[in-house]
Amino acid sequence: METKACYFEDYTLGDVRVTGGRTITEADFVIHAGQTGDFFPHHMDAEFAKTTEFGKRIAHGTLTFSVGVGLTASFVNPVAFSYGYDHLRFVKPVFIGDTIHTEVTIHDKRDTKHPDKGMVVERLAIKNQNDEVVMVADHLLMCQKREAEAVTEAASVLDGE
Amino acid sequence: METKACYFEDYTLGDVRVTGGRTITEADFVIHAGQTGDFFPHHMDAEFAKTTEFGKRIAHGTLTFSVGVGLTASFVNPVAFSYGYDHLRFVKPVFIGDTIHTEVTIHDKRDTKHPDKGMVVERLAIKNQNDEVVMVADHLLMCQKREAEAVTEAASVLDGE
Amino acid sequence: METKACYFEDYTLGDVRVTGGRTITEADFVIHAGQTGDFFPHHMDAEFAKTTEFGKRIAHGTLTFSVGVGLTASFVNPVAFSYGYDHLRFVKPVFIGDTIHTEVTIHDKRDTKHPDKGMVVERLAIKNQNDEVVMVADHLLMCQKREAEAVTEAASVLDGE
Amino acid sequence: METKACYFEDYTLGDVRVTGGRTITEADFVIHAGQTGDFFPHHMDAEFAKTTEFGKRIAHGTLTFSVGVGLTASFVNPVAFSYGYDHLRFVKPVFIGDTIHTEVTIHDKRDTKHPDKGMVVERLAIKNQNDEVVMVADHLLMCQKREAEAVTEAASVLDGE
Amino acid sequence: METKACYFEDYTLGDVRVTGGRTITEADFVIHAGQTGDFFPHHMDAEFAKTTEFGKRIAHGTLTFSVGVGLTASFVNPVAFSYGYDHLRFVKPVFIGDTIHTEVTIHDKRDTKHPDKGMVVERLAIKNQNDEVVMVADHLLMCQKREAEAVTEAASVLDGE
Amino acid sequence: METKACYFEDYTLGDVRVTGGRTITEADFVIHAGQTGDFFPHHMDAEFAKTTEFGKRIAHGTLTFSVGVGLTASFVNPVAFSYGYDHLRFVKPVFIGDTIHTEVTIHDKRDTKHPDKGMVVERLAIKNQNDEVVMVADHLLMCQKREAEAVTEAASVLDGE
Repeated sequence: METKACYFEDYTLGDVRVTGGRTITEADFVIHAGQTGDFFPHHMDAEFAKTTEFGKRIAHGTLTFSVGVGLTASFVNPVAFSYGYDHLRFVKPVFIGDTIHTEVTIHDKRDTKHPDKGMVVERLAIKNQNDEVVMVADHLLMCQKREAEAVTEAASVLDGE
Repeated sequence: METKACYFEDYTLGDVRVTGGRTITEADFVIHAGQTGDFFPHHMDAEFAKTTEFGKRIAHGTLTFSVGVGLTASFVNPVAFSYGYDHLRFVKPVFIGDTIHTEVTIHDKRDTKHPDKGMVVERLAIKNQNDEVVMVADHLLMCQKREAEAVTEAASVLDGE
Repeated sequence: METKACYFEDYTLGDVRVTGGRTITEADFVIHAGQTGDFFPHHMDAEFAKTTEFGKRIAHGTLTFSVGVGLTASFVNPVAFSYGYDHLRFVKPVFIGDTIHTEVTIHDKRDTKHPDKGMVVERLAIKNQNDEVVMVADHLLMCQKREAEAVTEAASVLDGE
Repeated sequence: METKACYFEDYTLGDVRVTGGRTITEADFVIHAGQTGDFFPHHMDAEFAKTTEFGKRIAHGTLTFSVGVGLTASFVNPVAFSYGYDHLRFVKPVFIGDTIHTEVTIHDKRDTKHPDKGMVVERLAIKNQNDEVVMVADHLLMCQKREAEAVTEAASVLDGE
Repeated sequence: METKACYFEDYTLGDVRVTGGRTITEADFVIHAGQTGDFFPHHMDAEFAKTTEFGKRIAHGTLTFSVGVGLTASFVNPVAFSYGYDHLRFVKPVFIGDTIHTEVTIHDKRDTKHPDKGMVVERLAIKNQNDEVVMVADHLLMCQKREAEAVTEAASVLDGE
Repeated sequence: METKACYFEDYTLGDVRVTGGRTITEADFVIHAGQTGDFFPHHMDAEFAKTTEFGKRIAHGTLTFSVGVGLTASFVNPVAFSYGYDHLRFVKPVFIGDTIHTEVTIHDKRDTKHPDKGMVVERLAIKNQNDEVVMVADHLLMCQKREAEAVTEAASVLDGE
């Protein structure tokens, strides 16, 4: 796990990164139901699933979200933290055997009430092996500003620290 | 797992339900890292965690979210489906040994572009054993309207079906 | 998880409830072997299993029992506790991909040596997707008597408590 | 995994074998809840458990049973199969950190309606680190009779096979 | 789990034992990735795997090694401990659904700098259902010498212990 | 998961990289026993462990190895594959709660019988939170040579491909 300081200024609008892929297995369904306690028949009962519009078991929304987000966890950024998510939408079902990956676009950057921090909005598009979007979400990443750090350091110098 | 049809009209603004509790264990951290591939040291490295502001390992946001949502999965509603989430926010960290539960308030009801469906917004507040909110999210539940069903049935009758 | 006080008097002989279904997956076999340490080739060795009368891997008896019983865990009854099981029988094998559910019949009610408690016998029939019984067991549920409680309360009143 | 043919005649009333031990961990609770879908607060909610008579989380009955039985799975007996269990009783709770083992006594041997098979009753006593019995059960093992095999073989010879 | 003291002198060059088999499932891949954090696409991404020379997902080397070694863990030897492994080689890939077993040959015995201990070299050959070797390794087992024990006991007697 | 072609020539003798850390939990012991079927009391029986020289449960060698190796799985190298391991040694026990990381030194580079491939030997030192080495192993990485590729390409040009 690499560590890399990535400040507010280092994110460029429109930049895109694409994660590796991950096949969602029946075992993932079982482990996720076990972790969450959500044993809804849509995920866990193949006979019931035959009677639904999809005809087979579909992944928990929280499973697709957790794995799709997990795929983006590639390096530790010590000058940012995850603030939350907006506009999480379930676009298409994920089936056993589908392979998903996540595309992350720097969608927005905005100031916050903290002068030393800015919000970076990463738009996540989780896609399957047919390049169909199965889930979207906007990740809010609260990042330190490099300039703020410079100011703080300057202030420290002036203060004789 | 009980099945209970709950139409748009059946949800009442302001209604609150409180789930049972669940202790978040070190095993949950391990299983969640294993499922998502997110082995960030904030969750998995006790030595690193000592150097952070929290002093100990904190739960993955996706773990708290998945379990917090899973706790609400108490009955199957065949006339609704999960549309997505808005305004998911990480308010406080969850530590190993914390016990969380979820409070679900019917926060909003609105029409959609589909005349036969309405959107119910469930506001989730995930709280710890000290009754502190650790995460919030608005769950969007797309529900069939009972009246619409009546209209459809009436139309069927008129059509001589 | 709902909580509902269900006293000895509240159980009616002959009442039946049917749980939802659950597909028993290869992952369940693997997790159960891992939990119990039972790696018998009947469950874990597909080549060996081909040489048996069933021709394929069969579920551990304890897996079918644990899941079949787990399916009945739908609400917490604070005035009862599980006393044990009688007449647990393995009737037919469960294979990977089978979907089981449990039918619970109130089979017997009897007094116990504790005047304030009665024993409710729930007969469990675990069935597969072809409605074949794969396992049976009689669950002994030790329940408080409502009348006893009334007596206790009356006594308390008389005692001036 | 050793294979050893053990016929009805090979079991001696009163014989005892003692398995190795296994510490029941919090992870075992989590994995068992995940496998069975039984998230009762007695097992999974440390805050709730503080309010019970035991003051802490207790193992699922099916967990103690599954592990206690699993500990006895030491060799494959190709001339016997598990028929069922009788008189399974939860005697004392098992807590996180308890170490259990199983003592197996040949308690009974009886003929069955199949002349070539006999039933061996193994009495299981699952005990904790203080040598207290926490669970008992009678395991019914349907075993081939060696004499029957001899008869069959003799018949084959007479038949000229 | 049986306990059996097996001294250096008790191992005979050329002796072979063959373990039972175990089918390597997709669930094993998922659990192993989860335990190790190794989510390389060769193991976890079915689409990527189609583009490799093998055309499908292959087991982690550490998975095959861990299970292959685990299969040999049949009894506890209180007078020996595992010193290490030499010459571990990945000979052929293991695919989902393959059934492996391990053949253990006493390959070498040698003295060590400790006069009371000798090194037994167990050559492990992990094979699949087609009897093809998929992995080899030499296990170094440091064993007490029986003669040394006799000497120690004799010395104790002389010392009047 | 980043992909980066790293040829034989790109590895420099003496180069060192240090992975992030990972706390080995009781859950890891449980999951590893479950995956391997190795339920030796040294790992799984806290009461037995009290009677050993270490006084507490120690990690499976294959667990330390699997996690220690997994920590190094940071990027996919499409021009190399894992050939095997030499000189794997268990130096010190790993206990529940220890935090391990791996230091990888380019220890040797050598030609192979394949003119287009060279062997890179990575010396792995797995260390605990006290910077004590708990395990060592030499990882053999079979790498394509860049020069060889150039030769092949040149040959292709000459061949008119």
